[in-house]
Amino acid sequence: MGETLISIIPDMERKIVDEFVKKAVELDHPLLEKTVKPVRLVEIGRDAKGNGVPVSSESIEEMPGKLLRKGDSICMDFGDHHVGYVTLKLNSAGSPQDAPAFLRLKFAEIASEILDDSSTYQGWISKGWIQEEFIHIDVLPCELKLPRRYAFRYLEVLAIDTSQKFQVVVEDAGLTAVSSVSMEDVKPLEGLPEDLQKIDRASLKTLQDCMQHVFEDGPKRDRRLWIGDLRLQAKANYVTFKNYDLVKRCMYLFAGLTRGDGKIGACLFTEPVMQVDDTFLWDYSLFFVSILHDYYQETKDLEIVKELWPAAYTQIKLALDDMKDGVLDTSENPMIAFIDWKEGLDRQAAAQGVWIYCLRHGKVLAQLAGDTAALDELDGLLKDAVEKAVSRFWDEEQGFFVSGAKCQVSWSSQAWMVLADIFDQEKSRELMLHLLDVKPAMGVMTPYAYHHVIEALLHVGEKDKALELMRTYWGGMIDLGADTFWEAFDPADPLASPYGNMQVNSFCHAWSCTPAWLLREYF
Amino acid sequence: MGETLISIIPDMERKIVDEFVKKAVELDHPLLEKTVKPVRLVEIGRDAKGNGVPVSSESIEEMPGKLLRKGDSICMDFGDHHVGYVTLKLNSAGSPQDAPAFLRLKFAEIASEILDDSSTYQGWISKGWIQEEFIHIDVLPCELKLPRRYAFRYLEVLAIDTSQKFQVVVEDAGLTAVSSVSMEDVKPLEGLPEDLQKIDRASLKTLQDCMQHVFEDGPKRDRRLWIGDLRLQAKANYVTFKNYDLVKRCMYLFAGLTRGDGKIGACLFTEPVMQVDDTFLWDYSLFFVSILHDYYQETKDLEIVKELWPAAYTQIKLALDDMKDGVLDTSENPMIAFIDWKEGLDRQAAAQGVWIYCLRHGKVLAQLAGDTAALDELDGLLKDAVEKAVSRFWDEEQGFFVSGAKCQVSWSSQAWMVLADIFDQEKSRELMLHLLDVKPAMGVMTPYAYHHVIEALLHVGEKDKALELMRTYWGGMIDLGADTFWEAFDPADPLASPYGNMQVNSFCHAWSCTPAWLLREYF
Repeated sequence: MGETLISIIPDMERKIVDEFVKKAVELDHPLLEKTVKPVRLVEIGRDAKGNGVPVSSESIEEMPGKLLRKGDSICMDFGDHHVGYVTLKLNSAGSPQDAPAFLRLKFAEIASEILDDSSTYQGWISKGWIQEEFIHIDVLPCELKLPRRYAFRYLEVLAIDTSQKFQVVVEDAGLTAVSSVSMEDVKPLEGLPEDLQKIDRASLKTLQDCMQHVFEDGPKRDRRLWIGDLRLQAKANYVTFKNYDLVKRCMYLFAGLTRGDGKIGACLFTEPVMQVDDTFLWDYSLFFVSILHDYYQETKDLEIVKELWPAAYTQIKLALDDMKDGVLDTSENPMIAFIDWKEGLDRQAAAQGVWIYCLRHGKVLAQLAGDTAALDELDGLLKDAVEKAVSRFWDEEQGFFVSGAKCQVSWSSQAWMVLADIFDQEKSRELMLHLLDVKPAMGVMTPYAYHHVIEALLHVGEKDKALELMRTYWGGMIDLGADTFWEAFDPADPLASPYGNMQVNSFCHAWSCTPAWLLREYF
Repeated sequence: MGETLISIIPDMERKIVDEFVKKAVELDHPLLEKTVKPVRLVEIGRDAKGNGVPVSSESIEEMPGKLLRKGDSICMDFGDHHVGYVTLKLNSAGSPQDAPAFLRLKFAEIASEILDDSSTYQGWISKGWIQEEFIHIDVLPCELKLPRRYAFRYLEVLAIDTSQKFQVVVEDAGLTAVSSVSMEDVKPLEGLPEDLQKIDRASLKTLQDCMQHVFEDGPKRDRRLWIGDLRLQAKANYVTFKNYDLVKRCMYLFAGLTRGDGKIGACLFTEPVMQVDDTFLWDYSLFFVSILHDYYQETKDLEIVKELWPAAYTQIKLALDDMKDGVLDTSENPMIAFIDWKEGLDRQAAAQGVWIYCLRHGKVLAQLAGDTAALDELDGLLKDAVEKAVSRFWDEEQGFFVSGAKCQVSWSSQAWMVLADIFDQEKSRELMLHLLDVKPAMGVMTPYAYHHVIEALLHVGEKDKALELMRTYWGGMIDLGADTFWEAFDPADPLASPYGNMQVNSFCHAWSCTPAWLLREYF
C-alpha cells in the first residue's frame, strides 16, 4: 500500500529485540537472478479510450540500426513485467562525439506510463517515485550500468540532445531480473478457462516481483514491507512459491522492530538500517496476530508461535487503547484503520470485523502457546466484540451493517463482518447476496478491498458470484494489458489514482496478487 | 573555441603516424590533485543590470543544519573557479526516508548560471553541455561520488522532491580539483596596479584550469584540444607554468592524427580513441607551423623541429589548395578560416595576415630543418603574399586594409596585417592608431580576436593603448565577478552568446588567458 496518511511522530521511541532481528538477518538469502533481453521495439500510442498501448512494433534486431538524433527515441519491450537492474550498451554514429549525449530513460510498468509527462506531476506523494533518469554520457561507446533497481516492462530511451555531428545508438540492452522466487517453481492451474489462466498468471507474476529481500508492497513503489500486504502475500505464497523463510523473516522483523511500547508498525525499512516507520494503522498492527496464525496453520511450527505470541498478544492489548465502548474510536482520526483507500469510507464497522477476525486467530495462538490467562481474556473480548458488532452496527431493517454516525452502508463493512463470522454461514450468504443486489454507493477502490469482498463471497460458498467479480475486476486490468496487477483500479475510471496522479501508481502491487491464492484455495 | 560550423565529412579518411601518437602517449602524465572545500553558502540574485551575483552569504558551518524540503535549495561557493570531481555526503532528517530523494545539482562557473533555466535552452549546440544533473537517491545517508568532471565555482543542490516525511541534508561536500599544473608554480607579477593584478590572476587560473591531459579550450565546453587555443595557451604557458611536455604532447597528437592527405584538423579527441575531428579551418591548420616555431624559440629543441617540419610544411602546401590568385578563396565558405566569431566578418584580409605570419615562421623552421628547397618555395610564396596583401587589400584612401567584395573594414583585418608585418613598424603604428580613432563597426567579439588587436598594438609599441583595451575588456569581465576569463564577451552586451544562449557558454576559456603572457612579455 502507499501512504494512507502522512504520519510523523517526532523523536518516536523505538524498541529493538536483537534476537528477532538477528534471526531475520539470518533468514535473508541471495536473490535469484535471471537475464532478460528486450523482445521487440514498440511504439506506444493511445487506444480509442485513451489508454496507452503498443500501436506498432519492430524486431529488436533493428535496434542497433536506429540512429538517435536530438529528440529521437526508441522504446524496448521486455515482454513481461520484471524487477531488476539494467545495462545498456551505447555507441555513437556519425562524426566524432563532440558533446555529451544527454539521455532520458523512462521505465514503465504499463504502456501508459511511457506517454506520461513527468513535468506535469503534481500529486501529493514524491515525484521521486517516477522511474525516469536523466543521464549525460561524456564518452561513447560505453556500457551504462544503472545502479538503481527498476520495475518495468517497457524502457524508452530518448535522446534529449546529441549534437548535429553525432547520433546515439543503443546497441544492446539487458536486464538482470531479481526475485526471491522463480516462476518455474509454481505449477499453473490446469483446466481453467483462458481468462482465469491469465488472471492466475498475472497474480503469480505480481507476487514473484514483490518477493525480494522482504515481501515488498510494490517493486516500483513503496518497495518496502507493509503488514497489510504481507498478510495477503503470505497466504498466496503458501499455495504457490512456498518460500517460508521470507514470511518468517518478515515476522521477525515486525516483532523485532517496534514502537517503544511494543506496537508493531504499519511498515518498516531495512535500509539504511532496519527500523520501524512512524506510521501506525490500527488494523495493520492487529494483522500480526493473523499472519502468525496463518503461518502456523501452514507450517505447524509451534516454536515460532511460542516465540512470537507475546508480540502478537501485545497488539491486541494495545488495540484496546484506541477503542471506546468496545468499538474503534474513529472520532479524532477517521483513517486510524486503513481498510481501503476509498474516499469517504467510514471505517468503524469494518474495523470491528477485523477486530473479531484477529481475536479468533488470537485465541488459537493463545491455546497453542498455552497462555490460559490470555485465552480467558480473549474469550471475553471476543464475546463482547461480537455482541457489539450486532448491537452497534447491524441494521435489521436495511439488512446491512452500518458504520459511524451517519450509518453508512459500505461494501467493506459487510465483507469484514462476514469474514468475522458474526452470523452463521446462511445469514452471511444472504447478506452478501443482498450486497450484490443493492450495490451500495460506498464501494471498494483497491484490489485489497476487492479481495475481501471476494473472499467473503467464497467464505459463504458463493463461488460463481466471486468468480464473476474476479473476472470483472482483475480481468478488467488484464483487458487493459496488465502483466501484473495494480495497486488501485476502478473499472469505471481506469485513470483514477489515490495520489492525484497515475504516474506514481504502482502497477505491480502485492495486495493484488490474491487470485492465485483464491483460485487454488476455493476451486 | 566552440564549433565554428557544423562540419561533417562522412567516411573521412584518416592517417595515423604511430610513432608520433606513441610519443604523445608517453608524454601524458598523471594530473595534480588538490582537495577543495566550499567556503560559504550563498544566495544568488540579480544586480541592477540583471547579472547574477551573490546577494547574501552564510557560513558553510550552517550547511548541515539546512533541512531541504521539496523545492528547497542551497548554493555552495567554492571560492574560486575549479575543475574536478565532486563528492557529497548526504543524509536525511525527520521521519524515515520513505521515498527516493530527487535532487538537481547545478554547477556554475559564474553566478548567473545558477539563475538560468535549462528547460528554456534552445541554442544550436548541445543542451548536454549544461552542467546539471538530476539524481535519485534511494537510500540516505550516502556518499554521492559524481563520476563526471565539472568546471565550476558554485554548486546548487535543489531538492526537487523528498516526501512530506523526510528532508535532505548536505552534510559535507568536497572537490578533487585537477590540472597538469599548480598555481603555486607561477610567481605573480609584482608592482602592478590592483586591477592588472586581478587580470593576471584570472588569466593564470584560466590557463591552469584548461591544462589537463591536453590543453583544453574550456573545461566546461568543449573540453578538448583546439589548435587555435593551443597556440595562445602555449605562449602563455612558456612565461608561466612552463609545462613543455604538454605542448609537445599536443604537437605530436596533431601531427600524428590527420586527414588522409596529412591536413591537420582544427581539433581532435583523445577519448574513446585518439582521432582527429572532421572539422578543418584554414587558419587553424596553418597555426601548426606557428606553434612549432614558438616551441623552438622557447626550448631551442632542434630535434623536434626536424621531426615535425614535414607535417608543418604540409599545412602550407595544403593551404594553397584553398587559395585563388594568391589569396584565400572564401567564395564558397565564408567561414573557411575562423579569425573570430563576429557575425558578418569578412575573413579574407585577416586570413592573408595569418598566411604571411605563418609563412614567416615556416621560413625559420625550413632553415632550421635544413630544407633549402622548401625555403626557396616559401620565400617566393611570402613575397607574393605580401605583394597581394597590399595590392588586393590595402585601401590607401581609407588608410585601412579592406576585405572581400564589399571592401569591409574590420578590426581583425588590421590586427592580422599588422602582426604579419606588411608595413614597417611606424606605418603599422599609424594604422593601429587610425583604427582606434575611426573605430570601424566591424569589431571583435571574442577574447581571441581582442587578443590579436592588443598584440598588434603591443607589436607597434602602443603599450598604453594596449593596456587601456585590456583593462576595458578583460577588466570588464573582472567587474562582472569573473574568476576566469570567458569564451565570449561583449562589454556592450554581456549576455551575448555565439550559440544563441549563454547557458552553454564557457566561462573559463583558453583563448582568453593571454593577458598573463602579454603582461609578462611586454611590460
